[in-house]
Amino acid sequence: MGRFRALVAYDGTDFFGWQIQPTVRTVEGELTTALARISQRISKVQGASRTDAGVHAEGQVIHFDYQGRMTAAELLRGLNALSGPDVALLRCETAADSFHARHDARGKLYRFDLWADRIGHPLFRRTTLHVPYRLDLDAMRQAAGHLVGEHDFSCFRASTCDAPSPRLRLSRLELVGNPPLLQFLVEGTAFLKYMVRTLVGTLLEVGRGRRSPDSMVELLQTADRTQAGETVGPRGLHLVRVDYEQRLW
Amino acid sequence: MGRFRALVAYDGTDFFGWQIQPTVRTVEGELTTALARISQRISKVQGASRTDAGVHAEGQVIHFDYQGRMTAAELLRGLNALSGPDVALLRCETAADSFHARHDARGKLYRFDLWADRIGHPLFRRTTLHVPYRLDLDAMRQAAGHLVGEHDFSCFRASTCDAPSPRLRLSRLELVGNPPLLQFLVEGTAFLKYMVRTLVGTLLEVGRGRRSPDSMVELLQTADRTQAGETVGPRGLHLVRVDYEQRLW
Repeated sequence: MGRFRALVAYDGTDFFGWQIQPTVRTVEGELTTALARISQRISKVQGASRTDAGVHAEGQVIHFDYQGRMTAAELLRGLNALSGPDVALLRCETAADSFHARHDARGKLYRFDLWADRIGHPLFRRTTLHVPYRLDLDAMRQAAGHLVGEHDFSCFRASTCDAPSPRLRLSRLELVGNPPLLQFLVEGTAFLKYMVRTLVGTLLEVGRGRRSPDSMVELLQTADRTQAGETVGPRGLHLVRVDYEQRLW
Repeated sequence: MGRFRALVAYDGTDFFGWQIQPTVRTVEGELTTALARISQRISKVQGASRTDAGVHAEGQVIHFDYQGRMTAAELLRGLNALSGPDVALLRCETAADSFHARHDARGKLYRFDLWADRIGHPLFRRTTLHVPYRLDLDAMRQAAGHLVGEHDFSCFRASTCDAPSPRLRLSRLELVGNPPLLQFLVEGTAFLKYMVRTLVGTLLEVGRGRRSPDSMVELLQTADRTQAGETVGPRGLHLVRVDYEQRLW
């Protein structure tokens, strides 16, 4: 009994994102319903990241309070039995009462998967963005180099973003993998709304030769969302890891 | 115009297998419907392998005859536009009139993917078999070694199998990958019905210590299906490649 934290994975395809909503299926809603069936003495679930509709997670972190007699291992089994096959608790353990999945997070690692081939592959359609044109990977890597570091990321920020400041530190923006399967690894202390998807959309325009790698420097200076590229679809985006002061698991 | 062949990939999850059936969605049915919408001068589709319900393909090969004016590239685009997102022609080209996708096949490579962890992963649930117990990989590899070669595979054959002979040559049965994602690579000139899935089911029993690796020798000799392990579910099975006398693509 007390506070628990868990590592959660989900296939975001059939969820309307993380945040609980009255009429649609969300990950927070699914876990909250499962918890309520286990005990009425369980608090609301708190997630580290409110992932958008269609975004996947391999390492979301949550916490909740529970006053009953079940152990962490029993809670894990119970929750997995009561929630759909597209979400699972991978780990569950007791935590200090002061632990907070969102406030204590020090950084996050996202991965954005691309299927860069003329024809989309049926087995990768749920978890990658299909990019049906040739990409200049070197140009994309050069452009990414200009974006790493501490900057005002206003040009990559959705108009509905409610983050306190657009000034953030992007510690990693790396393009890895072998065509046709490519992956962006994106790491930072915090992110603005749609930031990763707009970074990817802008770098894809560099890859197609529609922007130069060096134009990224000016783009950041405009601080103007209309100057950046499109916000690409969510299906390639994966929340891979949430980091805390101390390493969990 | 004339004969065409194509390389086809599909996510088998939402198909009732390859073979056309009147009331359910099948891959052959999906492609036949799409072809008929392109031209009434297109023959039936012939596939190299009649994969079972739920089995995936990365390298199925088909052929068909078409007497109109569209090129192979146009047929590929048209078919992909007209069929669901869970099936795609990856390549399409003209072929000799004598080419037959099934009769000319000289061998096939299958891959069977396992998710060997206590908890099934939501993002791998459609394409892997979840194996929630510890496996002795060395014992499984030893057992696999006894099965490679030319044998009477009657003990791994479904009672409804209509293959002319149970005597086949299995040229490869290899366990690769890193836990929790493991893969069996299974290659041979021909296969009996449910043979790959029953080989996997039997080797998993070896992995759990319920059979010894050396017991495979006797098992083959019994030629009795009731002596082998269970036929595991199809979702881990992928048709990776069909081989012909000459290398295609």
